[in-house]
Amino acid sequence: MRMYDIIRKKRDGEVLTNEEIAFFVKGYTEGSIPDYQASALCMAIFYKGMTHEETVALTQCMATSGDTVDLSRFGTLSVDKHSTGGVGDKTTLIVAPIVASLGGKVAKMSGRGLGHTGGTVDKLESIPGYKTSLAPERFMEQVEKIGVSVIGQTGNLTPADKKLYALRDVTATVDSIPMIVSSIMSKKLAAGCHSIVLDVKVGSGAFMKTLADAEKLAGEMVSIGKSCGRNIAAVLTDMDRPLGSAVGNVLEVIEAIEVLKGNGPEDLREVCVALATEMVTLYKGVPVEEAKALVLDALTSGKAYAKMVEWVTAQGGDPAFFEDPNNYTGVTTAGYVAADKDGYIQKMDTELIGDTAVILGAGRATKEDSIDPAAGIMIEKKTGDYVKKGEFLCRLRTNAPDKWEEAVALYRSAVVIGDEKPEEKPLIYKIIR
Amino acid sequence: MRMYDIIRKKRDGEVLTNEEIAFFVKGYTEGSIPDYQASALCMAIFYKGMTHEETVALTQCMATSGDTVDLSRFGTLSVDKHSTGGVGDKTTLIVAPIVASLGGKVAKMSGRGLGHTGGTVDKLESIPGYKTSLAPERFMEQVEKIGVSVIGQTGNLTPADKKLYALRDVTATVDSIPMIVSSIMSKKLAAGCHSIVLDVKVGSGAFMKTLADAEKLAGEMVSIGKSCGRNIAAVLTDMDRPLGSAVGNVLEVIEAIEVLKGNGPEDLREVCVALATEMVTLYKGVPVEEAKALVLDALTSGKAYAKMVEWVTAQGGDPAFFEDPNNYTGVTTAGYVAADKDGYIQKMDTELIGDTAVILGAGRATKEDSIDPAAGIMIEKKTGDYVKKGEFLCRLRTNAPDKWEEAVALYRSAVVIGDEKPEEKPLIYKIIR
Repeated sequence: MRMYDIIRKKRDGEVLTNEEIAFFVKGYTEGSIPDYQASALCMAIFYKGMTHEETVALTQCMATSGDTVDLSRFGTLSVDKHSTGGVGDKTTLIVAPIVASLGGKVAKMSGRGLGHTGGTVDKLESIPGYKTSLAPERFMEQVEKIGVSVIGQTGNLTPADKKLYALRDVTATVDSIPMIVSSIMSKKLAAGCHSIVLDVKVGSGAFMKTLADAEKLAGEMVSIGKSCGRNIAAVLTDMDRPLGSAVGNVLEVIEAIEVLKGNGPEDLREVCVALATEMVTLYKGVPVEEAKALVLDALTSGKAYAKMVEWVTAQGGDPAFFEDPNNYTGVTTAGYVAADKDGYIQKMDTELIGDTAVILGAGRATKEDSIDPAAGIMIEKKTGDYVKKGEFLCRLRTNAPDKWEEAVALYRSAVVIGDEKPEEKPLIYKIIR
Repeated sequence: MRMYDIIRKKRDGEVLTNEEIAFFVKGYTEGSIPDYQASALCMAIFYKGMTHEETVALTQCMATSGDTVDLSRFGTLSVDKHSTGGVGDKTTLIVAPIVASLGGKVAKMSGRGLGHTGGTVDKLESIPGYKTSLAPERFMEQVEKIGVSVIGQTGNLTPADKKLYALRDVTATVDSIPMIVSSIMSKKLAAGCHSIVLDVKVGSGAFMKTLADAEKLAGEMVSIGKSCGRNIAAVLTDMDRPLGSAVGNVLEVIEAIEVLKGNGPEDLREVCVALATEMVTLYKGVPVEEAKALVLDALTSGKAYAKMVEWVTAQGGDPAFFEDPNNYTGVTTAGYVAADKDGYIQKMDTELIGDTAVILGAGRATKEDSIDPAAGIMIEKKTGDYVKKGEFLCRLRTNAPDKWEEAVALYRSAVVIGDEKPEEKPLIYKIIR
């Protein structure tokens, strides 16, 4: 078998066999197939696509290209949630303890933030003492006992995807549904969960800017997940405005705690309930209405909040944090951004708001940057709200006063104020099961 | 400027600017742009093509990426002929002395053979003493004095094309008209000739298998050549059967001498007259009929043959060779391949006949192989001829008796004999000026 023939076959729009896909993934991971042949194949796939069967094969080969996590000890109770990434997306901090309080097993390896989207591991590290690195057995024991542990990536999971994604990133071949699907789903398969709920974000702050694209991606991921033997569902949620009010690490943890205590912003609560309901439906095998009732009870009874405290403290988090988390938000510079005219907020360029948080110190522009846990944004007005000139749009918080002007200007450029009230958009577009 | 953006732009079907193309060619030649980005761009060009202006820019950037040959001392008299490669194609050995005998200046660097097509340098080396390597000044002096010199490639001409072609060859991106055109034409521009005649071969022994593809390629090359300020024409000739009767190095030289003496196979003579006529038309600026009369006179008067002897001996070739060239054809094993049934030769797979010559030792399967100058094929029956069972199709000649069976079987498989007389095809399809 020769890589040349595989490239040529795909170039001409033919369907690759499982053996050809396995040959490519293995050879590329090992280094016997060079980058320049892999990038030519990626460009051919960009144009010619892949069938369902090809995407399944690519996903499975990448999933098994390195270490895999064995969650078989949890039987059908292991459950994962994956977000395609957004601004102010702190749902993992909320749904993980809800689900764990209802008997689900959440053994989650999570990522760090890069660019305009944040990462769960960075958020958890804003809690003093929280350890994002645990020995594998300790990680498993905590899930067994408490039902939830969230740590950073460990082991050599899906090296094929890591290598291929880095290549696609510099050869303009990222935007290809079969390659996006196989990249995400290979990581989910390697992470070992029996049930998976995907939160596919749609809008200006998301990778998928249109509903049509997001639906296509979500449909493919669900279809591939099922073909790979997993319970899976996707929830398409709005990311045309930030989720909740807080953007920034400790600010988001505090907002998550508010939701778990039965308070917090309505939009964040609604998305979390929808995601948790799907998770419970999948691993318990109960009807949606029954799952939703369980989720709402976990929130109102305080069970979910208690589970968060139990989880975080088990993982080294300082219990004092929960007594008054606002003690941990000190910054040198904070202030409001005011509206410069009367009108409705017609839209928010959510990616720019994420970029504003990066400038303030809450995120990373490059992998090497460090994070300021207390920096960030508290949004006061969102799309559809009416504001008067001088009214506050948001409050910015930073320890980098030299970045203040830039951050204010960028935030202002992200928010469009006009006379007409914008059309109301749904928060949850669709659920694909 | 970033290579990523250039790939993305072409990926989306946009037109690259001259600056972007220059950035790519320079960066790739120097090594600052890696192979994996270049191959992704090549695949995007494969699908999205290039405009005339883009192809001109790519051709010119590649032409000037290394050394160039300065033929300005010959004014408008320098003239080149380029063949896209075929089997039994010894036209350079014939048209070069014809044209030189009529005042044209043929300063030609020629290639070696690889695969089923032969190379002029290999053919010339079958003449004892002939030097295919001359110092640049000696090369120029010979062209000045005699009108013709043919040597092997020297200097670092079009390194961009060398690097890019090697990459395309292993990434299934060779078959792209703008990239084929820019590869061929950049070399022709760097070689410095004022007038260029292209012999574009069509058929089973050629790179272009169909007339439509060949016409498209030839039209593009002529158009690009004109835009780059050259006199240029293309002759589309048949390569659905070998040209002439001889395939193999010394055998082809001998056949070329026969044509120059006014004998030799009619098809070979006709193609050479057409090519030489176009060359004379271009550099002399005379009408085609006048040019053709000059060419025919050069052949019948013996001027062209005398020029060949002068050229070859000036370059070190043994004059004794011309007295009886058949003294140089000795091989250990020779014999005929006979028809296995009565009928018309309906077609000849010319690439397979070229491959047969390679097996006999007349060509190279890989760059490292050596050539046996005396090995080869003398074809006795060609497409359209009627043969009786047992009649000879050809005579094979080799110094590798262990390859005999394989060569006979391959030659036989290349020749299809059947009851119906095949439709007669033209030898010269079209001339594009």
